[in-house]
Amino acid sequence: MRRQLDLSLPDLKARYRHRTETATLQCAGNRRAGLMAVRDIPGEDPWGPAATSTAEWTGVSLADVLADAGVDDRTAAHVAFAAPDVSQLAHPAQPFGGSVPLAKALAGEVLLAWEMNGALLPRVHGGPVRVVVPGYIGARSVKWVQQVTVAPRPSDNWFQAVAYRLLPPDADPDQTEPGDGLSLGSVALNSEIITPHDGTTVTAGPTQVTGYAFAGDDRTVARVDVSSDGGRSWVQADLDSPASPWSWQHWRTTVDLSAGPVEITARAWDTTGASQPESPAALWNPKGYVNTSWPRAHVVAR
Amino acid sequence: MRRQLDLSLPDLKARYRHRTETATLQCAGNRRAGLMAVRDIPGEDPWGPAATSTAEWTGVSLADVLADAGVDDRTAAHVAFAAPDVSQLAHPAQPFGGSVPLAKALAGEVLLAWEMNGALLPRVHGGPVRVVVPGYIGARSVKWVQQVTVAPRPSDNWFQAVAYRLLPPDADPDQTEPGDGLSLGSVALNSEIITPHDGTTVTAGPTQVTGYAFAGDDRTVARVDVSSDGGRSWVQADLDSPASPWSWQHWRTTVDLSAGPVEITARAWDTTGASQPESPAALWNPKGYVNTSWPRAHVVAR
Repeated sequence: MRRQLDLSLPDLKARYRHRTETATLQCAGNRRAGLMAVRDIPGEDPWGPAATSTAEWTGVSLADVLADAGVDDRTAAHVAFAAPDVSQLAHPAQPFGGSVPLAKALAGEVLLAWEMNGALLPRVHGGPVRVVVPGYIGARSVKWVQQVTVAPRPSDNWFQAVAYRLLPPDADPDQTEPGDGLSLGSVALNSEIITPHDGTTVTAGPTQVTGYAFAGDDRTVARVDVSSDGGRSWVQADLDSPASPWSWQHWRTTVDLSAGPVEITARAWDTTGASQPESPAALWNPKGYVNTSWPRAHVVAR
Repeated sequence: MRRQLDLSLPDLKARYRHRTETATLQCAGNRRAGLMAVRDIPGEDPWGPAATSTAEWTGVSLADVLADAGVDDRTAAHVAFAAPDVSQLAHPAQPFGGSVPLAKALAGEVLLAWEMNGALLPRVHGGPVRVVVPGYIGARSVKWVQQVTVAPRPSDNWFQAVAYRLLPPDADPDQTEPGDGLSLGSVALNSEIITPHDGTTVTAGPTQVTGYAFAGDDRTVARVDVSSDGGRSWVQADLDSPASPWSWQHWRTTVDLSAGPVEITARAWDTTGASQPESPAALWNPKGYVNTSWPRAHVVAR
């Protein structure tokens, strides 16, 4: 049996309780440049730490819409989102799409959103209506969403089945089959240094170091450490409380820099006590995803 | 208002639906010996990789008991467990106890259990009735549980407020105050090599390497890699599916060893694409918890 519920934007606004959530959206390729410094990754963008940001999203809970549509199929395990924008990056060219586990879709925080930071959602950010999947890689927060489908299996859209997958380092990304590698969903623990910028000159003496950290879907960041001696000693940064369970957290501390070149390093710890791997070399993968290695800023103090 | 529900073991068995879950219990100090090799940790046991195991537990869902007790207090956020065994390790000496977030306690998998692997729970494992908190450090699965209390704050028992906390490396564990450091709950991603044993001699040629990996409460292990050249190259191990969402996963692969000394290394990846830090040096902490660094077995092939 197939059931279908057709909803206009006015329907969405009128039929369901409105909900606002603060959520960080982060590209799976955030910080890819650090992996490309280990070994080139042809055809991918050299994202630094800014392929991520945080906004307040307003819309309705996807869970309420799914309940209204009578989703009670015990064989259903995934919810797919389809957009109208045909991508030439896909093989074959096809509209953008993706899916998330039903359990996540039924969590109240997944939204069909039409507002961002209190204003109507701009078209470039997915207006009139986009999906917002807090804690998941940005690719699952499908823009301009037109169709939501409940199904037993993950979407077979190219962007779910082939792209956004963590491949082993020796895999040939041009030869991958649908289902190869690890499908990315919830974001892994990560952090970045915002200031000082890598490659800049700073004044010797007390220097403020700032950054962000993010622990993804089901955890928050519990501690961030900063080192200015290559990781031999660390100071604990002041860490903001998360604005929501799915929000990055900003941090800051002051380190005393002697004149000369210095490497500033950071590392975050999540609520399980897990921390970040040291080196991008161990994390290199053919599509350049999930660079969770310690961020490092090389500066010269004068 | 305080409400109280008194239940005998026959009451537990008669009033609530029985539930069986496979769950790995892991000491927060599992693999501490690897941290002690970096710097001594006086007064703590040098656990190797065997401070963990997996069993099938049968009992009732704590959630059902809490519902029966009318837990609907919006100010409640934690559930504390109290045991009768007075510990002289605590300051001051006190009965063992601990707590978990109410959200976890209301997840169906948290049990009041009286059976382990189909047999009556032995006293040494917490019989007649213990708590089993799948995915959490073993200390929260309180043995011989006598009292369950719902409260706005975590338990102030010494084993919750002072012990089982991840302290920064420069903290003095004898000077910590209740609430210092990061309270451990859900287990962090980890793995270990079971065979060959560190320090043994093996026959040169194809050698089977086996181990376990565990991703804690809310994730599973998606991939395990094995290296026999110090992490320069890796092979993907065959990885068992988890017996439950809260179970370790065994893995195995074969590496070809030339005659001579060799370091076998492993690393696990969870479903978010997060992996383990390389070195225990970066993870050292005064109580020796959460050693999630790459496991390494140094063997000689002959």
